Amino acid sequence: MTAQQERSRATQRRLLEATVECLHDFGWSGATTTVIAERAGVSRGAQLHHYPTRAALVLAAVQHLAERRAEEIRTEAAALTGDREQRLDRVIELLASAFTGPLFVAALEVWVAARTDAELRDALVPIEARVGREMHRLTVELLGADESRPGVREAVQATLDLLRGLGVANLLTDDTPRRTQLLAAWKQQLAKMI
Amino acid sequence: MTAQQERSRATQRRLLEATVECLHDFGWSGATTTVIAERAGVSRGAQLHHYPTRAALVLAAVQHLAERRAEEIRTEAAALTGDREQRLDRVIELLASAFTGPLFVAALEVWVAARTDAELRDALVPIEARVGREMHRLTVELLGADESRPGVREAVQATLDLLRGLGVANLLTDDTPRRTQLLAAWKQQLAKMI
Repeated sequence: MTAQQERSRATQRRLLEATVECLHDFGWSGATTTVIAERAGVSRGAQLHHYPTRAALVLAAVQHLAERRAEEIRTEAAALTGDREQRLDRVIELLASAFTGPLFVAALEVWVAARTDAELRDALVPIEARVGREMHRLTVELLGADESRPGVREAVQATLDLLRGLGVANLLTDDTPRRTQLLAAWKQQLAKMI
Repeated sequence: MTAQQERSRATQRRLLEATVECLHDFGWSGATTTVIAERAGVSRGAQLHHYPTRAALVLAAVQHLAERRAEEIRTEAAALTGDREQRLDRVIELLASAFTGPLFVAALEVWVAARTDAELRDALVPIEARVGREMHRLTVELLGADESRPGVREAVQATLDLLRGLGVANLLTDDTPRRTQLLAAWKQQLAKMI
């Protein structure tokens, strides 16, 4: 990679990180391209060079944050030790952290905005389909689940949908005590199901 | 009730219904007080008389839509026949419809907006806590679940959190085929758990 390419890559990364941060901190309507460029410390010209529209920037940020989230989960999961039960416990904790963390919140802002913005929605749908498949595959891998057995695929899907619901329940207040109790019961169910 | 009170009540109802419709159709940022008054066919003066601020209108609408949703579920559930298994099946279907319908979408718009609007959030949190408790109680009642038995409370909560997650998964595309398959498996699990 040339020095020029490296600089470009670093600028893009700063813009994408700033987009995620601004979506988290200010919500969809507050995360304007001006605010994002300022947060990234990137000129408007450079921003427009890399991402000509707000939609282009946000879509790239959604992909970037999905990759970052998967990478974080994978790294932490690689350090896991213990038997199957302890491993399941820790994997669910890792996933629950992801679904209540800043990356989930930023993604939710984009999903909700895309619902009433046809152009954004059309571009987002294939990205989200891929992200969803990758998240499912990662969860199967981390849990060591055997999807050829009946009901296992649905159990993994239900886990991810449950975690998404718990993420939304955590938006306005800290739902940790309720979530902890609920997930303790869920882990026991899941251990029997997968 | 006097004729004047009846007219006031009807005006309020029109405004609240219009608020829910506009949140659904245009999202949070598009559902301005002007757009809502126009949709309701109510003058700006009358709107301001009943709901002096946008926050007051939206908070009243959230309560109104929660009541309407509970009422709809209750009415449909009252018509249910069949054995325990058939009843569980139909109750989950009713709840899944509620969590993928326009009232859920309107509420989600408000939750997400409230996350980055401290004033709205502070007013919304106690309302949502009450709505959440009532939804839980209604679900327990409709399922005929006995919460004194260990794990039953968590199973009912997990059902509602799962349905919330499925509601979000249905925002941008029609997720019905996947949801139907997932819920078929969930109903079997739930029947064993409650």
